[in-house]
Amino acid sequence: MSGAGAPRVAIGPPGHPPWAAAAAIAGGARIVALAQAQALLWMREGEPGELREVLATAPQLRWVHLRWAGVERFAGVLDRDRVWTAGKGVFADAVAEHALALGLAGLRGITARAGARDWGPPAARTQSTSLLDGRVTVIGAGAIAGALARMLAPLRARLTVVRRRELPFPGAERTLPAQRLDEALPGADLVVVAAALTPATSGMLGRAQLARMERHAWLVNVARGACVVTDDLVAVLREGRIGGAALDVTDPEPLPAGHPLWTLERCVITPHSASPTELTEGAQRERITENVRRFAAGRELLGVVDLDAGY
Amino acid sequence: MSGAGAPRVAIGPPGHPPWAAAAAIAGGARIVALAQAQALLWMREGEPGELREVLATAPQLRWVHLRWAGVERFAGVLDRDRVWTAGKGVFADAVAEHALALGLAGLRGITARAGARDWGPPAARTQSTSLLDGRVTVIGAGAIAGALARMLAPLRARLTVVRRRELPFPGAERTLPAQRLDEALPGADLVVVAAALTPATSGMLGRAQLARMERHAWLVNVARGACVVTDDLVAVLREGRIGGAALDVTDPEPLPAGHPLWTLERCVITPHSASPTELTEGAQRERITENVRRFAAGRELLGVVDLDAGY
Repeated sequence: MSGAGAPRVAIGPPGHPPWAAAAAIAGGARIVALAQAQALLWMREGEPGELREVLATAPQLRWVHLRWAGVERFAGVLDRDRVWTAGKGVFADAVAEHALALGLAGLRGITARAGARDWGPPAARTQSTSLLDGRVTVIGAGAIAGALARMLAPLRARLTVVRRRELPFPGAERTLPAQRLDEALPGADLVVVAAALTPATSGMLGRAQLARMERHAWLVNVARGACVVTDDLVAVLREGRIGGAALDVTDPEPLPAGHPLWTLERCVITPHSASPTELTEGAQRERITENVRRFAAGRELLGVVDLDAGY
Repeated sequence: MSGAGAPRVAIGPPGHPPWAAAAAIAGGARIVALAQAQALLWMREGEPGELREVLATAPQLRWVHLRWAGVERFAGVLDRDRVWTAGKGVFADAVAEHALALGLAGLRGITARAGARDWGPPAARTQSTSLLDGRVTVIGAGAIAGALARMLAPLRARLTVVRRRELPFPGAERTLPAQRLDEALPGADLVVVAAALTPATSGMLGRAQLARMERHAWLVNVARGACVVTDDLVAVLREGRIGGAALDVTDPEPLPAGHPLWTLERCVITPHSASPTELTEGAQRERITENVRRFAAGRELLGVVDLDAGY
């Protein structure tokens, strides 16, 4: 499969993981230098400017694959001279599992109990919210929302999905367009942010929105920190207006030591660990292999970036 | 439905929740004094001796319902002079959800992050185990195991169930009899104890068994604390032989302040809060209503205690 007709693929930048080449070769690629390449697998985030320089020297590239799912940092590099793909969906199962874990840990009082040094008062037993027959609002209608819908189904949780357009979402009881976000927040036991970061979603959960959540409800963010207005979240948590926040992403990120979020009891933060490579390498490899096959056959690629939508 | 043909039901002991009578009446019962009763709903645990005294004064009782699921404390009171039912299965969904929450919170490093005051080293990102395509061993084949199997299905977790007899369990890849417990522990990412406490299950997870678990694996106990040998669990956690333990039940219980388990970093304890009344009152009421109907119709009751098995 490394004959003259094989797709010629370059991989960058230096320091990319060794399995990227193997995954491309499994799809029929021949690994070549940039100047000879038809396609580029961009496997380390680094600085977007680095990729811009590479593209300037290799205008012949017809396809660039960005390894990760959220590509907002590369908004200024994405162009219409070639096809761009991202790891959209590749991380979805792992991220959805982490979102479920964060939500249940908060609602079930488990994060509150971590570090406890005694059994606590009898009232501690009852400070537990269940998602059984509960209500969950997911902001974003991508692969994470789909995976989460499947994981919530056995709990019989009733799902509201907030998305750009008002199209029905499989497994959701209700789908609302983004401009009706305010209606999706009251009544939910759990609100999960799983949207791409775009100008439309940046800061979409500010004080006005967070204050519409139930007092017992938890906010989970597994998307991008900037979808939530951090200072507003701090204020709402300080005032006890919501049950808590479980965040895998923050704004800024990494969240600096001394930031007020670290001091809030009902806030737990994991360090962008929803989809570490150890959990997702297999899915990343499969995506590359499949897309190389599709590229060779002239078929539509998976995870194509919608340049108008920004993800 | 309160005519002469209605089942005559008494409720005790004093201090029982007010909804018990409503649930029985909904099933067609007439609430009567103990001396007139055919059936007794025993709705507060209290001391088993209290129930023994009640039975001595009311030998005519043909059916006694014990509200909770685990009845090991009443082993000396259960007799063959009447039918005994328990809340077996009533709490299963809530307890399974809590078990899932505890397991994911431990495996995903969420309990370890609760109380963190900074982002942590890059290695913290990768200290996360997923149940996606993972392996789970559940000890016990009752309603909790069934509910957990359904909740794990969307994660594609491969399930091993350990039960008294080697009968296939729906949703399990492998079913092993209790005497082959040792084979069920290696390879599992998560081990969940969900068995009734009986002479056969008391202390079934001692040092020899715990040491067979994987170094990254978490132990979850939502059954009874005494299924696990507490001192052995402390030792195994101190030695870092397993990933951690997330316990909703302990031995002794409540676990006294100053107990070594409180000081171990990779141990989180919720105060027997998997199925608080707030979450399960509806299911408890339904069980009473349905069983009163069945009693009136002479049909088999739900949740009958197997006196030979002890649960």
